[in-house]
Amino acid sequence: MKLYFLGTGAGVPSKERNVSSIALELLQELGSIWLFDCGEATQHQILHTNIRPRKIDKIFISHLHGDHIYGLPGFLSSRSFQSGETPLTIYGPKGIEEYVETSLRVSGTKLAYPLNYQEVFDGLVFEDESFQVFALQLKHGVPSFGYKVVEKDILGELIPDKLKDAGITPGPIYREIKENEKVTLSNGEIIYRADFIGPDKPGRKLCIFGDTRYDPDHQSFIRDTDVLVHEATFEGSQAQLAHDYFHSTTKQAATLASSSNVDHLILTHISSRYQKDQIGNLKEEAQTIFPQTTIAHDFYEFEILSKKSSQK
Amino acid sequence: MKLYFLGTGAGVPSKERNVSSIALELLQELGSIWLFDCGEATQHQILHTNIRPRKIDKIFISHLHGDHIYGLPGFLSSRSFQSGETPLTIYGPKGIEEYVETSLRVSGTKLAYPLNYQEVFDGLVFEDESFQVFALQLKHGVPSFGYKVVEKDILGELIPDKLKDAGITPGPIYREIKENEKVTLSNGEIIYRADFIGPDKPGRKLCIFGDTRYDPDHQSFIRDTDVLVHEATFEGSQAQLAHDYFHSTTKQAATLASSSNVDHLILTHISSRYQKDQIGNLKEEAQTIFPQTTIAHDFYEFEILSKKSSQK
Repeated sequence: MKLYFLGTGAGVPSKERNVSSIALELLQELGSIWLFDCGEATQHQILHTNIRPRKIDKIFISHLHGDHIYGLPGFLSSRSFQSGETPLTIYGPKGIEEYVETSLRVSGTKLAYPLNYQEVFDGLVFEDESFQVFALQLKHGVPSFGYKVVEKDILGELIPDKLKDAGITPGPIYREIKENEKVTLSNGEIIYRADFIGPDKPGRKLCIFGDTRYDPDHQSFIRDTDVLVHEATFEGSQAQLAHDYFHSTTKQAATLASSSNVDHLILTHISSRYQKDQIGNLKEEAQTIFPQTTIAHDFYEFEILSKKSSQK
Repeated sequence: MKLYFLGTGAGVPSKERNVSSIALELLQELGSIWLFDCGEATQHQILHTNIRPRKIDKIFISHLHGDHIYGLPGFLSSRSFQSGETPLTIYGPKGIEEYVETSLRVSGTKLAYPLNYQEVFDGLVFEDESFQVFALQLKHGVPSFGYKVVEKDILGELIPDKLKDAGITPGPIYREIKENEKVTLSNGEIIYRADFIGPDKPGRKLCIFGDTRYDPDHQSFIRDTDVLVHEATFEGSQAQLAHDYFHSTTKQAATLASSSNVDHLILTHISSRYQKDQIGNLKEEAQTIFPQTTIAHDFYEFEILSKKSSQK
């Protein structure tokens, strides 16, 4: 589970930062990669990574501003050209389907794979056996969502010593015990998995926010996540500017992280007004409030490690 | 008058070649720059040149395939963000307006300048005092146009010796004579500009083609141009493949140039199947047919020099 920051700039591309896109690599967990936003030239950024476009099967769009969506038609077309044949689903606010479908139709593009759309509202957006994704509408000039990716807790490991003590010798029966809460042994004895298994490994949680004003109400959505990816378009002193343009400052994002028991804060969507030599200052002012803050740059990678098993 | 090749690849971007776009710099002639096609990340390519987006006031779209238009919404938005306030006109086949307007509307983009559209058909597309642009529909899977930019002949220079011989001494009168066919001097004498002026300087002509199959019928449109920019998606031996996909080979483009009295041929829209070390071969096989052939690469520049004055 790894985040790849493909574009970390705000509004317009610069030589240093492309417009918004983040990939969440879930190859070990699901054999797939998810994309969060897809600004223009996201497919160009991907060329400089080892991400294979056909592995991307979900794209979560935070909001419809051009710097978050204008890379979609090109990415979708190239995925098809590069032998992508498996379905892909786009999650996002109303309007994304009209934009993508018009772009593909006018350009005469026929995709080689099924493309699905799911309009996003507050609440559960997606769920399978191992993950849930929730959405929360933020505070921006147009409907803009934050996404929370929740990995379900992972079952603990069987404890071989306990099994042996109970006279159960290694074999296919171990797998059966792992996969079932209750198993009847060949001698008729009924055993319960809970008696032979270590504690659950808690799943990981991360939040990836779209453009938004600072709002303390966002705390409850974010609470206890391993990673919060938050926009910080402006430096700490520009709170008024941030408010006027429906954006956040470094310090506001750090304040939110600090009050929400988050492990790591990664700031992105950095205005092109800030040159390379100013990024250190942006980071420092956030770290005075929340020390575990990083400012993302294009191609920055962040691995979200599995947590230690919790004690039952 | 200079061509800047911003994207010289075919279909999908690669690390070496972006998708299609060419800028025609007319700063001396018109104070403006024209763009021919605008594939995704054209605005990113422009960041690496000294082209100022607000100087671009016309965009000619050859056809609606994604690799020729997906950079339009982002370019138009960024031009607005970067203080572009003067009008811009997009020339292209039916559909371009729907694509651009849907993209801007869905993304909530309000441009700070008037954006106009002109649907393109065979024939004269644009004319002002010093330029004409003509379009010709080519042979492609969707309507695809070639554009011919024709600079009108430029009036010759006044010949001071002749003026002095006629007793006309240097002063504001010289400008008046240059600007009018017939002038009445202060002594009542009527003089004619034609008697005091050198021969016209012939205007320059260039053709920029969209995607197309080879077709000898294109000769008459191209004839006598200074520069022909033609696609060469495939190498000479792939004529069947080129035909099947409505594209051309290096040799076909060279044959067309050779039979049309063109001064220079620039090949672009090169398939990503050809690596850097194969480009020399592509060039050589075209040059065996038409020696003045170049293969464009991203950021290749070609200056179209004024011709010597023709003899009257």
